[in-house]
Amino acid sequence: MAFDRLIEKIVEKQNPTVAGLDPKLDYVPASIKNACFEKYGKTLEGAAAALLEFNKAIIDDIYDVVPAVKPQAAYYEMYGWQGVKALAETIAYAKEKGMFVITDGKRNDIGTTMEAYAAAHLGSTDVAGESFDAFGADALTVNGYLGSDGIKPLLNICKAKEKGIFVLVKTSNPSSGELQDLKLENGASVYEQMGRMCESWGEQLPGKYGYSGVGAVVGATYPGQLAEMREKAPRTFFLVPGYGAQGGGAQDAKNAFDKNGLGAIINSSRGIMCAWKAQGLTEDDFAAAARTEALRMKEDILSVIGEIKF
Amino acid sequence: MAFDRLIEKIVEKQNPTVAGLDPKLDYVPASIKNACFEKYGKTLEGAAAALLEFNKAIIDDIYDVVPAVKPQAAYYEMYGWQGVKALAETIAYAKEKGMFVITDGKRNDIGTTMEAYAAAHLGSTDVAGESFDAFGADALTVNGYLGSDGIKPLLNICKAKEKGIFVLVKTSNPSSGELQDLKLENGASVYEQMGRMCESWGEQLPGKYGYSGVGAVVGATYPGQLAEMREKAPRTFFLVPGYGAQGGGAQDAKNAFDKNGLGAIINSSRGIMCAWKAQGLTEDDFAAAARTEALRMKEDILSVIGEIKF
Repeated sequence: MAFDRLIEKIVEKQNPTVAGLDPKLDYVPASIKNACFEKYGKTLEGAAAALLEFNKAIIDDIYDVVPAVKPQAAYYEMYGWQGVKALAETIAYAKEKGMFVITDGKRNDIGTTMEAYAAAHLGSTDVAGESFDAFGADALTVNGYLGSDGIKPLLNICKAKEKGIFVLVKTSNPSSGELQDLKLENGASVYEQMGRMCESWGEQLPGKYGYSGVGAVVGATYPGQLAEMREKAPRTFFLVPGYGAQGGGAQDAKNAFDKNGLGAIINSSRGIMCAWKAQGLTEDDFAAAARTEALRMKEDILSVIGEIKF
Repeated sequence: MAFDRLIEKIVEKQNPTVAGLDPKLDYVPASIKNACFEKYGKTLEGAAAALLEFNKAIIDDIYDVVPAVKPQAAYYEMYGWQGVKALAETIAYAKEKGMFVITDGKRNDIGTTMEAYAAAHLGSTDVAGESFDAFGADALTVNGYLGSDGIKPLLNICKAKEKGIFVLVKTSNPSSGELQDLKLENGASVYEQMGRMCESWGEQLPGKYGYSGVGAVVGATYPGQLAEMREKAPRTFFLVPGYGAQGGGAQDAKNAFDKNGLGAIINSSRGIMCAWKAQGLTEDDFAAAARTEALRMKEDILSVIGEIKF
């Protein structure tokens, strides 16, 4: 099961964090951009080449200390199919370096359409008897608003390919409560109901460390709800956005973990990618600065959860 | 406003339907596939080329009678960046032929990430001062589970570029009720609440025919709920899946329209793409069969709603 592999990497590196690769062209140093523009012009192709170089440099400097990366699909799609190619190449490069890759696509649909997304991002695609992994991530974020018809096609591929999904439950943004916090007649809130559905879907993908292959996105910016969900969804592994740039700290994120320091992985995107700014360095030092920040974040979180053990 | 343009095309063609372009490689005739495999090999590139040829042939045969196409992103993503390139080329081709293009991506995220999706699919992307339309559709389907933070970044781009969005409200699938039908303490169901949010977001994008730039996806497979939503969300234009292959008929779809026959567009995907099967023709007749089915569907719906007028 995919999250068994993730958990093993987390324990081995004693680091329950994931580096978000949401590269804006503004974040990429001029030296990289100019080299790519010289080669491909000021085009989507040139921009995509620059994003890929940027990502590779960050991966090179963090892969031995960070277990996972989370590329956000939107930042690649905005550079067209050329950007989407850079996404595929980023995923392949991170996997080559032994990292666990979570594609943050928040995909959702039903039936055969959801099967197509599952094949695209987690499974493989058949072309007249030849098989290709189109993107080949280890896990995908998904949106469960459509109910089981949108999740079941993923479970089959997750089982066959040892992959996992993270379902949006309680997101980190200020307006997440507009729908997610509303109380249902059954006494649960909408996000609690979604959490229950995750626990139920997860029964089909049991993992050896107590966590199923159906995880949940629960934001660090709502620490009370994070603690509550940790208790109510004991088999559901959490992907936790909102640490750092969005305002959540280690004490907030702590609520995502069980007593062994397992059960969650904390994301930082801008904090890692733009670390050189906070560290008072130059933009050409972005990769080394990303490593320094990744190590600081790891220590910050370990300082509140202690040693991570099975 | 984007839906003004769509409404004008619907009235001009007296056809409130949209052809879903969800091409599986299985749907593409052997003659097209073999030519593409000969040129590009049995590869993702070869498959993507075949999908594009298939789409272009359908568009060629329907563009004068059907106002809009709706490519479903999943079926392109499963063929990798090569497939995503075919999506971009399909959109460009349909627009060249004067069709209104709805990208069915059900995208969702927050803040700058949602801005990136909006730029990708509806707006434009800046590369060092040069501007590119990465995908350039007229409208995008989106998922509102994250609340206003996920929708507002779209409204800005919709306003600036005269584009529109369709928010998932009540989807056509059997399990859509698992979450969407649950009653909230305020007496509304989850989908009604989402419909209210659409009406409210739409205030920022008023249209000259009474419908805002924030539409809703409401399935034909739940005709009672469709009628109820038509009444409760009078400024919200509906994109209606579920006609044909999913079981909804013209009488069901009728509930989506106002008394002038406006207010909705009905989608058919497999019914159009695979029409040659139902018509007892050979696969090489797929494009002509798609036209016949498109005209049959138009007449079927007009027979229950009458003439469409402003």
